[in-house]
This record gives sequence, structure tokens and C-alpha cells, in this order.
Amino acid sequence: MGMPETVTSSTQSRVLLNSDLGEGFGLHEFGNDAELMKLIDVANVACGFHAGDPDVMNRTVGLAAENGVAVGAHPGLPDPTGFGRRRMALTPDEAESVILYQVGALTAFLAKHGLELHHLKPHGALYGMLAGDEELMVAAAGVARQFGVPFYGLAGTAHESVCRAMDVDFVPELYVDLNYGPQGQLLIQRRPEPTDPAAAADRVRRAIVGEPVHAVDGSPLSIEFRSICVHSDAPNSVAVASAVRDVLTNR
Amino acid sequence: MGMPETVTSSTQSRVLLNSDLGEGFGLHEFGNDAELMKLIDVANVACGFHAGDPDVMNRTVGLAAENGVAVGAHPGLPDPTGFGRRRMALTPDEAESVILYQVGALTAFLAKHGLELHHLKPHGALYGMLAGDEELMVAAAGVARQFGVPFYGLAGTAHESVCRAMDVDFVPELYVDLNYGPQGQLLIQRRPEPTDPAAAADRVRRAIVGEPVHAVDGSPLSIEFRSICVHSDAPNSVAVASAVRDVLTNR
Amino acid sequence: MGMPETVTSSTQSRVLLNSDLGEGFGLHEFGNDAELMKLIDVANVACGFHAGDPDVMNRTVGLAAENGVAVGAHPGLPDPTGFGRRRMALTPDEAESVILYQVGALTAFLAKHGLELHHLKPHGALYGMLAGDEELMVAAAGVARQFGVPFYGLAGTAHESVCRAMDVDFVPELYVDLNYGPQGQLLIQRRPEPTDPAAAADRVRRAIVGEPVHAVDGSPLSIEFRSICVHSDAPNSVAVASAVRDVLTNR
Amino acid sequence: MGMPETVTSSTQSRVLLNSDLGEGFGLHEFGNDAELMKLIDVANVACGFHAGDPDVMNRTVGLAAENGVAVGAHPGLPDPTGFGRRRMALTPDEAESVILYQVGALTAFLAKHGLELHHLKPHGALYGMLAGDEELMVAAAGVARQFGVPFYGLAGTAHESVCRAMDVDFVPELYVDLNYGPQGQLLIQRRPEPTDPAAAADRVRRAIVGEPVHAVDGSPLSIEFRSICVHSDAPNSVAVASAVRDVLTNR
Repeated sequence: MGMPETVTSSTQSRVLLNSDLGEGFGLHEFGNDAELMKLIDVANVACGFHAGDPDVMNRTVGLAAENGVAVGAHPGLPDPTGFGRRRMALTPDEAESVILYQVGALTAFLAKHGLELHHLKPHGALYGMLAGDEELMVAAAGVARQFGVPFYGLAGTAHESVCRAMDVDFVPELYVDLNYGPQGQLLIQRRPEPTDPAAAADRVRRAIVGEPVHAVDGSPLSIEFRSICVHSDAPNSVAVASAVRDVLTNR
Repeated sequence: MGMPETVTSSTQSRVLLNSDLGEGFGLHEFGNDAELMKLIDVANVACGFHAGDPDVMNRTVGLAAENGVAVGAHPGLPDPTGFGRRRMALTPDEAESVILYQVGALTAFLAKHGLELHHLKPHGALYGMLAGDEELMVAAAGVARQFGVPFYGLAGTAHESVCRAMDVDFVPELYVDLNYGPQGQLLIQRRPEPTDPAAAADRVRRAIVGEPVHAVDGSPLSIEFRSICVHSDAPNSVAVASAVRDVLTNR
Repeated sequence: MGMPETVTSSTQSRVLLNSDLGEGFGLHEFGNDAELMKLIDVANVACGFHAGDPDVMNRTVGLAAENGVAVGAHPGLPDPTGFGRRRMALTPDEAESVILYQVGALTAFLAKHGLELHHLKPHGALYGMLAGDEELMVAAAGVARQFGVPFYGLAGTAHESVCRAMDVDFVPELYVDLNYGPQGQLLIQRRPEPTDPAAAADRVRRAIVGEPVHAVDGSPLSIEFRSICVHSDAPNSVAVASAVRDVLTNR
Repeated sequence: MGMPETVTSSTQSRVLLNSDLGEGFGLHEFGNDAELMKLIDVANVACGFHAGDPDVMNRTVGLAAENGVAVGAHPGLPDPTGFGRRRMALTPDEAESVILYQVGALTAFLAKHGLELHHLKPHGALYGMLAGDEELMVAAAGVARQFGVPFYGLAGTAHESVCRAMDVDFVPELYVDLNYGPQGQLLIQRRPEPTDPAAAADRVRRAIVGEPVHAVDGSPLSIEFRSICVHSDAPNSVAVASAVRDVLTNR
């Protein structure tokens, strides 16, 4: 992020649409998993700490298997009330254990449904904490390495630098339903707001051909990416995913 | 249990001493893990639902690896306040998910420390629920089968019958620090009481040579077993484990 | 329930419409609180164990205060994943502590918003456990007595007998969106199903004039009641509450 | 803290010894509550979020009542694994709700045992967060005001300034088992270390007569205080409390 390299066409051909799913909890449904599963390539499945529970995980992984969607782990902070969107002062050892635990738990459901772990993408505040703290990120990248999977994150942050240093495959993401600050930082919200599907599609169209996308203040940003994230918890997430899917299909 | 077959000498030679470890939680220490690790063959490690947390699991598995102790999963009910010793009305699907989640989580720590999952032994009320409910037990045995590990349980109960029906290796246990009822049922307590190490050693000595052990009312019981369980949460659990270890070593 | 006394007209004049509200959790919304608040007399507010969290409680109590709705405590089992709808083997002491804790927590929000505790109505499996176990119910009734509020429950069960024995005001409920068994027992479901608003209204109309309501097998039941419960988690709960409200208003 | 006012003799006569108690959880015991209750004037009782559970709270408040010990609320962050010692990014509204919930819960047990709430003293990372953030502290002081009780905290921080601005009685504390930094800030540890009882007694003796106590680097500090805190989770907390008690009794 903020890195002015043009995305090469070989990379473009592998752009995958990902979405955070399985974020219900008990009777509390969340997102639009059934519909999104038909539109995305890759699901980041919540692992029980910020959302999800063993039954929700089982159903979500089963749904992914039925739809031919690859599944990555989406571990979060141990803060269900805050949906993992409140920073917590974890040590690197604690972060590693929290991530190991959740990724391991997910793999049991993957094996049941005949899938393998596809990648690791942390959730919410943990994602942001890792982006800004190399020591924490070393712990997280170590888990990706242990499981032999790529790490999904934000180019130009510790996500990328640590993965490169530790030889972990790094997959940079483009966000279509969050604003970027002028330095390319993601402006994460506690509660989702609706995104204009046309604006999301436009951002993807520009980004794919290497045109700059716009920060919240209008600054042009060159976002390096190999995957595009659509959040499932916006009210119109299906429309947004659908619009982005159209761009990816028709380019 | 209640089955009058004499334990054969080939079985005797494989009697392993197991103990439930890793049952601390955050700053709350529990049991005598460091000392017990030197005495036992197999640790049943708590997986975060009735006790244990990701850091405790990491430390416990690391300690087991250092001591050459094999590690089984010890999943419990989602009831930390009740230490997994209060029955909960789970459906078979819920039981399966709860067990899958916890066993999967443990395997991430095992892989980190170079170990493989050794067996599955449910904790507390879940252990008792499975012993008495074939439908639930089918769910649990399915998890053991998925992971390709034996199930530790109580002979003569659904533990055994379902494992045999599903072709899951079943390892019957002898308990030295719990009383048996006249029908051979375990009398599980909410809070541990101290056990006389000499009585524990005596029970093992008798059981190994096929003599009956005594139920709480004095009834003779013929307990089939391939492993012996010593609980870690009795105040003198180290002395009990040590006494049993002596019997196993010196026979 | 099952008691053939005709509901007297003095009782009829006090029939209050109650609903279980505040059952969201973090970002997970639940029910139709904003609309139901305009239709009901009394809200049973979740207290954080089966659902609800401190922020949800604060918002729900604030909403009740704005709408002139009285607030009772709706404590549940410590089982958020199961939404408090799975039985747990609590001792009477544990049940008392669990209820005291939750009711106390609610009173802090009531005081903030200028309300007083109106009644106590346990949730889900706890409600059912108390209906069938006098020892547990003594613990629960003791909490109602400590707070000086009536207990909402099911006539003809331990709810009623224990309240009468302990001189706690007992308010029997009529359910319009659950089926009754032939002995008048409530058939509680883990997940809500839609109820026909016309059928709900008809049940109320009949019950108010002392005509029997029908059990699931058609048996006539004479349900004694002073309050009517509409669940908030059925998809059409607002329509059901509205239909019942009309009957109560227009009789 | 850092404020050079001499503690007056009228204040000295009211110096109360306080300790954080009730920090067990389920079967996990913690601290030395039974012995400390005989030595202290005031217990800060954990309220279920960082430690404690409804049964532990009931037993702890009962023990306080038997020993004539006054009880304050000791609410913590919703982080049992971290024992409330990891900072979390709460908003002021969230902090208020979290504190209201826990204080309310405690009052139910106080009423049961015939006690009234004595004061409010936040736990661990929440205590530290409030000391450094006036907005959060306004939320906390509002809860103390709602319940009409004093706030225990650290002189010279937002604890004090906000309480004074909001006309909430503020009781500054002296810590005898934590080190102070050169600016008088408390150096909070995740895990307790033993304190020399003689050093603790010496600190109290000096502080009471207005002599400076020493920061970790030897800097002299003038600590304003009306209460002295002894933590319960150091291995020798009883010896420390006993030594401090002797100083208070014999001066």
C-alpha cells in the first residue's frame, strides 16, 4: 500500500474475491453467507473468538464445501462482545497461542468436510494490530508457516514486511467497502455501513488496470493486491459482492 | 466394567498411566502438572472449554514434549464456571462440533511441539453423558475415527459398545481416585477429595492380577482396563501418581 | 394450568402483554425490540448470560423507559452459544447465585434510566427447570422475594406452588406462540417458528373469556393467566404482538 | 501523587487497609481470602468479568459480612483469560456499561448478606486506563455517583481530577506491593511477585508521617493516600497484610 508498483497482469489473473463468513453466534445469524458463497472464491471463516461457534463453523465449512469455495482461517481477539474490533494488549506469545488455537479448531471442520486450509487472514482489531507491530506479526506469520498457507493482509504494512522476511507467501488485499486514509491505511469501523455497489465496482475496475484508487480525502493511492475483500456484514453485501464479481468476470 | 474377563498379560504390559493436565486458566494455576509429567505416560490435556486457555495449552503441550509424555485431547463442555462437571443437554450434532473444535485446537499446539495426537478422552460431565447415551457417543467416536486415535473410556458403557460398533480402538480405564458404585459406575465429584496413595496402589495391584476391586458398598467389581487414570486436582495427586507408578514399575 | 378455575374479571383487567427483549449480543441484533416496545406493557430484559451484554442492556432499558414499558429481569443459564435453551445441572445454590447476579446487574441500568425492577421471569431452559424442580424454584423465588417483585411463570407448576408457599406474588402467563402439551406443559423449541397472528389472537380471545385453549393434540386446557407472553424472536413477532394487543384493547 | 501536601492527622485516622478479593473462578481458587479477611478493613470484590463468578461472589461477600469487612466493587475488563490485566480499547459508553453491570451484580449479593456497597475501585488494566483517560473516567465516576459511593484510585491522575470535578468522593490509595515509577505512576505487573513484608511496613510507616516513599529509581515521592492496598495474589500476601496491619494498629 502506498507502494507505487503496478500490479502485473500475471498477478491480475489470480485475483480472488474473499469474504469474512461464519460470523453468526448461536441463534444469532449474521451476514449473508448462503448468498455470498455463490459469489466468492474464498471464505475467511470466523473461528469462535470474535464470532462463530463450533456449530456455526461446521455449517459454514459445509456450505463452503458444497459451493466449491476455499476456506481460510479468520481468527480474532477473544472479545465476542466487541466482535473482535477492540484492540487488546496481547503479547506476541499470547497472539501466537490465540491464533494457533483458532486455526487448529478450524482445521478439524475442514478435514470433516474434505477441505484443506487455504490461508490465514486475521480479523478486525487483530488484523490492524498485526499490520502495525512487527513482533506480533512474527507470531502470526509463524502460524501461517506452521500450516504452510499464505497470509492475507495489507501491502506496505508489517503484514507484508514480516511475511517476506519469514518467507511466508503474502497475498495483499484490496478493500472495496472500507475507506482508505491518505497514507493508504484502512479506516476500520466498529459497525458496518452500506457501500455503493457501483463505487465498489469502480474501485475494482480502476485498481485492476493499475489506476489509483482514492483515499477518503481524495488522495490517489496505488494499492497492490492479489485478492479483493467484501465484508459480509454490510446490509447490502450481496449486491456489493455481485458488482465486484461482475467486474472480475467481465474484464 | 462388570465384565468378568481376566485382563490378559499382553494387555497388562501396555498399561499406561494417564492424568488430566493443563486445567489452569489464565493466572489461575491448577493441579500439579510439572511434577505429574515426570510420573505419567499419557497426558489428557484440557482444550479451553472446561479449563485451559491457548497459553496454558501451549505450555502444557510443551511440557509434555520435554518429558516424553504422549498427549491426548481432553475436551469438555462449554462451562468454565462449572469446570465441565455439570451436565448440559447437547444434541449429538452439538456434541460433535464441540469435540471437533477442541481436538482441532489442540492439534495446532501438538504440531508446534512436534507431537501427534495420541488419543481422545472427554472430560467430566461430557465423559459421563457419553457413557450413557449411544447417540451422543456415536458423535464422539466419529471424531476419534476422523483423527485416527483411540478413545479412552469406561468398559461396559456406551463408550465401549459404540467404539466397538464403529471400529474405533477403545482403551478402558481404571480409576484409582474415584469410587465405583455397585454396578461399576463411576461416582464423579464436583470437587476433588484426597485419595489414600496406599489404597490407590492396592487397587492397581489387585486389578492388574485380575482380583476384584471394591465398589463403595464393598461389592466386588471386575474392572477391565488398559490405562489407569490419576486426577491432577486432588491435593495429593503427586503422591497418588507416584504410588501407582511404583506398582506399575515393580510388578 | 390444568387448574379449572375461571379467570375472574378483576384478574382480566390486569392482563399485561410481556415480551422477552434485549436478546441481541454485541453486533448481533435480535428480535424486533424497537417495534415491540410500542405494543407491549412489560419487557423481560435479557441479563447477559443467555444473551444481552452490558451495552445491549443499557440500550434496551433506555428504550423501555422512553416507551413507558415496565422492565422485568429475564435471567438465563450461562450458555450464550445455546441461547440458554439447553438444560444444565445447576445446584439450587448455583441457580440462586446465577439469578442474583443477573438481576442485580439489570437493576444498575434500571436505576440509571429512572426505572424500578418490575418482576422476575427466568429464560428458556432455566424457566423449564424451575417449573419442574421445587428445590431450584425455592432459590429463584428467594431472589424475587429479596427484590420484592412478582415472579412470572406457569400456573400448575413448581413456579406457582413454591411462590404461594413462600408468599411471593405469582403472575401466571399465557403463551400464544408456543404449543401446549396435553397436560398443559409448554413445548419449548430451540429455534423459533412463525405463529399465525390470527391463531394467537383467537387463543387470547378464548382464554380471556374462560374458554379452553387447545393443546397440540386438541385437548382442551384451562389456562390460568394474568399476563400474556409474545416471543420477540419469531420472524413475525410484531404482527403477533399487534394482533394480541388488539384483542386486549378491544375487549 | 506527586502532590506535596502532607497527609493530615485527621486523614491518618481514617486510613483503611483494602485488598482485592473474590478473584477465584469456579474450582480455581485464588489468593488467601479467608486469612486476609481477618486483617483488612475493606474488600474490593471481583465482579465476574476479570475473575470471580456468581458463586465465588456469594461466598466472598458472605465471608466479608462474617468478618465485619466493608465491601467495594472491583469491576474489571471482560477478559478472564488475561485476568483483566490487558488493556482493551473501550469507548466511554462501553466502559460505563461494563462497570454498571458488574457493580449492579455485586449489589444483589450485598443485599442478600445485609451489606451496602462501600466504594468503587476498578481492577487492573481498567484502573490504569481510567487513570490516564478523562473521558473514560467520567463514565466510571458517573457510576460511583449513581451508587453514591467513593471512588478508590491514584492521586494526581484522572481518577482524582475527574472525581473532584464531578463531586465524587475520592479516596487516594497507597500501594505497598507494587513499585512506583519516578513520576509516581504505578508499575503494574501481569503476574504478582512476592513483596518483603518489612519493606511494605516501612513504606507505610514513612508515608503515614509524611516522609517520602521511594520510586523504583530511588526518587522520593510524596504519596497522598487515605487507604492502603495489599494485593491478595502475591504468595505471601497474608504476611504483607499482617505487617501493614501492625503498623496501622500500633502507630
